[in-house]
Amino acid sequence: MTLKLRQLNTAAADFEAEFQRVLHWSAETDAAIETRVAEILADVRGRGDAAVLDYTARFDQLSADSLNALELTREELKAAFDAISPAQRAALTAAAARVRSYHERQLEACGRSWSYRDEDGTLLGQKVTPLDRVGIYVPGGKAAYPSSVLMNAIPAQVAGVPEIVMVVPTPRGEKNPLVLAAAYVAGVHRAFTIGGAQAVAALAYGTATVPRVDKITGPGNAYVASAKKHVFGQVGIDMIAGPSEILVLADGTTPPDWVAMDLFSQAEHDELAQSILLCPDAAYIEQVRASIERLLPTMPRAAVIRASLEGRGALIQTRSMDEACSLSNRIAPEHLEVSSAEPHRWEPLLRHAGAIFLGAYTSESLGDYCAGPNHVLPTSGTARFSSPLGVYDFQKRSSLIEVSEAGAQKLGPIAAELAYGEGLQGHARAAEMRLKR
Amino acid sequence: MTLKLRQLNTAAADFEAEFQRVLHWSAETDAAIETRVAEILADVRGRGDAAVLDYTARFDQLSADSLNALELTREELKAAFDAISPAQRAALTAAAARVRSYHERQLEACGRSWSYRDEDGTLLGQKVTPLDRVGIYVPGGKAAYPSSVLMNAIPAQVAGVPEIVMVVPTPRGEKNPLVLAAAYVAGVHRAFTIGGAQAVAALAYGTATVPRVDKITGPGNAYVASAKKHVFGQVGIDMIAGPSEILVLADGTTPPDWVAMDLFSQAEHDELAQSILLCPDAAYIEQVRASIERLLPTMPRAAVIRASLEGRGALIQTRSMDEACSLSNRIAPEHLEVSSAEPHRWEPLLRHAGAIFLGAYTSESLGDYCAGPNHVLPTSGTARFSSPLGVYDFQKRSSLIEVSEAGAQKLGPIAAELAYGEGLQGHARAAEMRLKR
Repeated sequence: MTLKLRQLNTAAADFEAEFQRVLHWSAETDAAIETRVAEILADVRGRGDAAVLDYTARFDQLSADSLNALELTREELKAAFDAISPAQRAALTAAAARVRSYHERQLEACGRSWSYRDEDGTLLGQKVTPLDRVGIYVPGGKAAYPSSVLMNAIPAQVAGVPEIVMVVPTPRGEKNPLVLAAAYVAGVHRAFTIGGAQAVAALAYGTATVPRVDKITGPGNAYVASAKKHVFGQVGIDMIAGPSEILVLADGTTPPDWVAMDLFSQAEHDELAQSILLCPDAAYIEQVRASIERLLPTMPRAAVIRASLEGRGALIQTRSMDEACSLSNRIAPEHLEVSSAEPHRWEPLLRHAGAIFLGAYTSESLGDYCAGPNHVLPTSGTARFSSPLGVYDFQKRSSLIEVSEAGAQKLGPIAAELAYGEGLQGHARAAEMRLKR
Repeated sequence: MTLKLRQLNTAAADFEAEFQRVLHWSAETDAAIETRVAEILADVRGRGDAAVLDYTARFDQLSADSLNALELTREELKAAFDAISPAQRAALTAAAARVRSYHERQLEACGRSWSYRDEDGTLLGQKVTPLDRVGIYVPGGKAAYPSSVLMNAIPAQVAGVPEIVMVVPTPRGEKNPLVLAAAYVAGVHRAFTIGGAQAVAALAYGTATVPRVDKITGPGNAYVASAKKHVFGQVGIDMIAGPSEILVLADGTTPPDWVAMDLFSQAEHDELAQSILLCPDAAYIEQVRASIERLLPTMPRAAVIRASLEGRGALIQTRSMDEACSLSNRIAPEHLEVSSAEPHRWEPLLRHAGAIFLGAYTSESLGDYCAGPNHVLPTSGTARFSSPLGVYDFQKRSSLIEVSEAGAQKLGPIAAELAYGEGLQGHARAAEMRLKR
């Protein structure tokens, strides 16, 4: 069966319309889900543990007498770690070490308090402190990703969060040993086998058993995404994740099979995932297409990959690499591979992307698991305004202001003038009271 | 008329219940507002300029033939600046200079790209870039704050945002000259006299006249807050602001009139604003109460201040300054004054606050207008997980990863092991293809 993979050319008259069709992604929420989620949130807020137990029994076919019974002990997590294969243990441990090392650099680069005194002796600055308690949502069931445990928990740990609470649904009680082992390696403090909107509600409001957290991070299905958006404000959230995407910007120097497999590695996530190739070289695009056709039947998840490539994928021929960079900025992809012999020539032109993978050896999958940077990245063009999950997501800042007596004399009249202009006499007089007579 | 200002004592048996009543603040949204806002957003998304004009005529009693007619030119902004009093011009300019200087330090402290290479020559880091275009919402009508223009626009400008679009409603066409002058001083690029949910929609979706932005910041009424929450995901937003609050932590060494006026300066914002004093010294609390009673009748906004203090204010006697610090952390106030002779003794104990004002000379109002730090701060306890508006809100980060050939040999087997464990063979094979045979 031939693959119906869309091919575009920026020189074609209908390019813009075709391109818009490729980009189109409706993030519209399903009203039925919204209503259902609002009910679940209100119920958990009102009935606490009992409501969480009810929904867990109903949605996950997992019954328990108390929520305590759904807490995983540190011993269970350790037992899972001890029970996986030595190769898996080594891989998890190595990945965790690299992720930790990268996020420690991130903490150094932007996570420290700072202050200075001006010429009047007035101190100004910001104090950076970790959040007290965070919740990380880990999907369970058909897409259980131990790597997501590392990517969410380790930045929180590096930020200095004293209590990391993980929730992970375990449909019919089936626990994923790699997820539990990852929680052990990442240093998760508490873990509950609950999921869905009910788990988000438990974390946001707190129940008798589940402690209320300050922020919830981590991906989930439509119910989880809707619940996170609902509780935003009550607690912090990281982002609302859409389907995953990869954009490969190729100059034709990377083996075509590598690029084909990189496109697959995104498409295999789910039918809505998006894989796009931008390349100025028509012959190379044909080589990648041939690789795709040849390799696709060898993939265990071929059906998902085919659906994703046919539904949302595209091979786009551009006039030049420069034009490819411009188009990439319009897409603002989650993952951006610069599969070029000159990656540093193009990188400065790339303004919007969750993560930029430079050079032929940097497959997205290396970054997904163990290069070090986070794999929780802004999707659906939100890289225009948001950032990878990082240490900074588990910190907050407080401004520090200590106005000296001399400073108060200088600042008082300015503040008073502006405050009177705004009709706020209390503000003005508070400033004026600090003036020497 | 005696002021009915709640007084609590942490040693009292009913303290916890009373304290919960003081803290209680329902951020529940009004379902009628939600529905109305959803309709406005959908209408602006569908009809663009025409819908914005309709709502502006209806809600602001301001009619125009085209949205172009509602754009303020740079000349109009300059004319407003030229027309205000010399004292106002000087105050605006001085405040802007200090705010800019502080935010430039913030950029230096945490806004730069960074990268490093590991022992295999693999490059890892983050590239920090400004957003392309941001929208700042400035309230109009009864509470028009030129200082908010500076506090929103200057961090965006310091971050390097090339296009800052301001929206400000002008009910019945009445423009606030100080707001226009502040826009001139702050370097706003474009400005429209539109407001409400329709302005938020225009910025989030774009219309023929109003350009689509990447992020919307700035405070507004319940409609604006609801609209911002709705469009979150489509664009970035700063935060959902609740009523403003001040917490004064006093050791009894500051003149009581100063503290009373600082409490007023928050209470005068609106009836829902909250002013709380925490102090271990009963006699000093009585002095502050006497100052409040004496000064209140002298305030032009006495009615608002009274309503706010009686409805949500409190004087709380604590056992010690240490206990006061603990309570402060539970409140996580927007503004926290450490009105003490030893502010640096207590500051390290304070974990959650939008801004911390140290020492008797640091009235909140100096910080609100011109000390330098931002006055857009997390309210309603959200300082537990969020931060003052800053340069970082107008930047985003992209991870940089360049795996060397040697690095790919080391990382490939780790990534493949984990990918097979997650059932993602495409990921595994993409890593394995980079291994040398």
